[in-house]
Amino acid sequence: MTAVPPRPALKVRRINLDTGRENVVVISRRSKALRPEVFRGFSRVELRANSKVLLATALLTDDGIVAADEIGLAEPAFHRFAEPTGSLVSVTPATPPESLDAVRGKIQGRVLSDAEIGAIIDDVARYRYSDMEIAAFLLGSASFMTSGELLALVRAMADAGTQLKWDRQIVVDKHCIGGIPGNRTSMIVVPIVAAHGLMIPKTSSRAITSPAGTADTMEVLARVDLGVEAMKEVVTACHGCLVWGGHVNLSPADDILISVERPLSIDTREQMVASIMSKKLAAGSTHLLIDLPVGPTAKLPNALEAMRLRKLFEFVGDHFGIAVEVVTTDGRQPIGNGIGPVLEAQDVMAVLGNDSAAPRDLREKSLRLAAHLLEYDPELRGGTGYARAKDLLNSGAALKQMQKIIEAQGPPNCNTDLGPLTADVPAPRDGVVEGIDCLRLNRLARTAGAPIDKGAGIKVFKKIGDPVAQGEPLYRIFAFDEPEFDLALAGSKADAGYAVGPPGAKP
Amino acid sequence: MTAVPPRPALKVRRINLDTGRENVVVISRRSKALRPEVFRGFSRVELRANSKVLLATALLTDDGIVAADEIGLAEPAFHRFAEPTGSLVSVTPATPPESLDAVRGKIQGRVLSDAEIGAIIDDVARYRYSDMEIAAFLLGSASFMTSGELLALVRAMADAGTQLKWDRQIVVDKHCIGGIPGNRTSMIVVPIVAAHGLMIPKTSSRAITSPAGTADTMEVLARVDLGVEAMKEVVTACHGCLVWGGHVNLSPADDILISVERPLSIDTREQMVASIMSKKLAAGSTHLLIDLPVGPTAKLPNALEAMRLRKLFEFVGDHFGIAVEVVTTDGRQPIGNGIGPVLEAQDVMAVLGNDSAAPRDLREKSLRLAAHLLEYDPELRGGTGYARAKDLLNSGAALKQMQKIIEAQGPPNCNTDLGPLTADVPAPRDGVVEGIDCLRLNRLARTAGAPIDKGAGIKVFKKIGDPVAQGEPLYRIFAFDEPEFDLALAGSKADAGYAVGPPGAKP
Repeated sequence: MTAVPPRPALKVRRINLDTGRENVVVISRRSKALRPEVFRGFSRVELRANSKVLLATALLTDDGIVAADEIGLAEPAFHRFAEPTGSLVSVTPATPPESLDAVRGKIQGRVLSDAEIGAIIDDVARYRYSDMEIAAFLLGSASFMTSGELLALVRAMADAGTQLKWDRQIVVDKHCIGGIPGNRTSMIVVPIVAAHGLMIPKTSSRAITSPAGTADTMEVLARVDLGVEAMKEVVTACHGCLVWGGHVNLSPADDILISVERPLSIDTREQMVASIMSKKLAAGSTHLLIDLPVGPTAKLPNALEAMRLRKLFEFVGDHFGIAVEVVTTDGRQPIGNGIGPVLEAQDVMAVLGNDSAAPRDLREKSLRLAAHLLEYDPELRGGTGYARAKDLLNSGAALKQMQKIIEAQGPPNCNTDLGPLTADVPAPRDGVVEGIDCLRLNRLARTAGAPIDKGAGIKVFKKIGDPVAQGEPLYRIFAFDEPEFDLALAGSKADAGYAVGPPGAKP
Repeated sequence: MTAVPPRPALKVRRINLDTGRENVVVISRRSKALRPEVFRGFSRVELRANSKVLLATALLTDDGIVAADEIGLAEPAFHRFAEPTGSLVSVTPATPPESLDAVRGKIQGRVLSDAEIGAIIDDVARYRYSDMEIAAFLLGSASFMTSGELLALVRAMADAGTQLKWDRQIVVDKHCIGGIPGNRTSMIVVPIVAAHGLMIPKTSSRAITSPAGTADTMEVLARVDLGVEAMKEVVTACHGCLVWGGHVNLSPADDILISVERPLSIDTREQMVASIMSKKLAAGSTHLLIDLPVGPTAKLPNALEAMRLRKLFEFVGDHFGIAVEVVTTDGRQPIGNGIGPVLEAQDVMAVLGNDSAAPRDLREKSLRLAAHLLEYDPELRGGTGYARAKDLLNSGAALKQMQKIIEAQGPPNCNTDLGPLTADVPAPRDGVVEGIDCLRLNRLARTAGAPIDKGAGIKVFKKIGDPVAQGEPLYRIFAFDEPEFDLALAGSKADAGYAVGPPGAKP
């Protein structure tokens, strides 16, 4: 082999540009380091310095954004490459990641080996894949995936990030597949279970397309962006925690895959199970309760779909030695009254405080889920979980435990006021609430500003089966700014998300 | 419906940043027009001004790239939106194109209607799709496409750009699916056919992953970036032309789809046929000859694959009333000696000039293809096409016609020198050339700098069946700059792309 002379290096310059997940760099068309023409057809480049490698999308410029001997790194690339301004990097046209051969094989219908899936996930987690390459992997897998491939995917995703270890025989966790407005049961279940003394180190996500994730709601009460060590301290002190999973870096490839799945609405059972189980495996859970809400506007429309998903969760759990229990719950309408971080946090604290106005459905569902988890404790006799959960809630032990967790995680750092702009959405006729569209209420709460505005959202007054008089408020919209408020109000007038049947109708 | 108050508009600022195909805009995090936080999860925005709409990917910045009341448009977005600097535009989070619902349907296995396919292609051609959305459409279609969907796709792609009309009963065209180094037959066939008097308005592509397209090679001899009107003048004057299709804007959606197909190596028969036939339909061709090279390192490995592709071309041709003839040719090795624009142009001019050193294979193949096309002339008796083609070539009429076309298109505007750095790649042993790897030679010629450096590439000295002595040159590498030259030379040492068998071996 002839030795190839090195190309001259470029100096790092930081460019204040938030390019989201993607690594983007800017190179001058007059660049001294390489003839930029070679980039026609090569929009991807490879940066190397101090044995670090970064793949990035290259943009060219003629003017002063960067000098001819510089390479501009947009914020995400700058932080990931972590080389100081002015340091020298070599830049070459990037060859695509080798694991793309396996993606092409998958598209052509081939079954991938564990090593191939491992290489794909490793490259995804290292930001080596472009959006279109991620889409190709997801779509190739969406049309056909063997159970062996699913297991390899879960393993690879769990291995790609932090892996938590706990010195307990039993580490319990719960997870809901989402889609139901309100439904903030984790924030009641965790303090009950932790008050009993079982370990429940709960990590949650932020909302992506919904008006609130558990992490967004908990953030109203306490800090949630704890690192691994801080999280471990909280769990040691309180048996449980309620932190944001993103900061703990569990299954980072999952967050990247989701960012492409969502806009494309790729939503296969296998990918949902891989996403959830990889995080639980990485979190060190031994016993896992999964909540599958079923309803016409829930993610699962019927019991058959729920059963199929349940089998898949159990299959993966069995393989990795996680005891998985799956419960099907009523997903026809919101759980609790609040939709949006502050309103949901109010519901949670009302239930924990045994407030007489606390939403009964949220209390009952939380007790039922907590009962399942408590019965993982071998000391507890079968069937006594519910009574124990109720004791811990009614006695104030759960509230005390929640206060302890909040104190351990630290004070919140956000505006927790409710939105000052409010409007009630009235019933269109006398009658009975026959149905509530979960998707619609989520959408309206998001339009009103949730979860970015913590105190924006919707407070529900009427549930299925409730009689209503014409003009009586079905729910109240909360917002901070006119544009969002007006959009949400206009949206509720176009479609309020409620079906009101004639008086005396059975829902 | 409540009227929604308009958000304040932003002032257009031009950002000198070449973002390739994608529309990219830059917005300040302190923007007055909208709370930029709403963009979390909304990286796509919609710009509106004077009834124009542009979808773009939004990047956020904190510092002076744009002011709070400005929106920066990177070059492609600036040119496509075509609003002057300082003009006011409204910006809102973009809802995805409606046609994406059909893409999701396709992914789930649904057969799409003509209207749905039309809407997808229209949105693609208007740059409304992100890369990942294009990938989703291509992958959804790659796994299953009905013949009805294929026809709708060809129609929609042809309709999305320029549609040429000619006042002749017979408008002939030829097309090769590519993959064979050299093989610049169009530049010989067009002058022969045009000299005969048949109309052959040939548009060609530039190389995307190969070392030269016909447009790159013709550019060594004449201008190729003619607009529609200039192209028509050339064709009127000369019966034919050899221009770059990209400037004429035939089937612009095709160029966009290809830019995603290539990196993902999506290469289905249907997409190849849709790509080629949409361009021919838009070009107004009535009679089309298609060249399918078959060989171990060609795009088609065997006769069965070629037959399948032939049937699909004929099916689409029949439907749109284009007489399609498909010929299978020898695709085992390069055609002609040159690989790279200048070297290929030398081969072409040597054949047209009846130079005794002209490559015989290029001459023979061109005559054969021209013969097929000439026989579309009802005046010509069946079987006499070959003799007529030979007459036109041997008499110098074809050369004269080529000179006329070159003059009509205008003088070239590029460096046509051969690369001054050269190295011969020697035969590793005494013997006979048994095989040549077309992919490898293309790759080496491209590494040497072709097609960016017109005079870079490879000149082949030995073909299959030729005896060679150890150390005798198989081919010569030409390059302009040390880095490319060294890389190509190192590449040829690792794998020269030639199989040399023992003396006397039969290839």
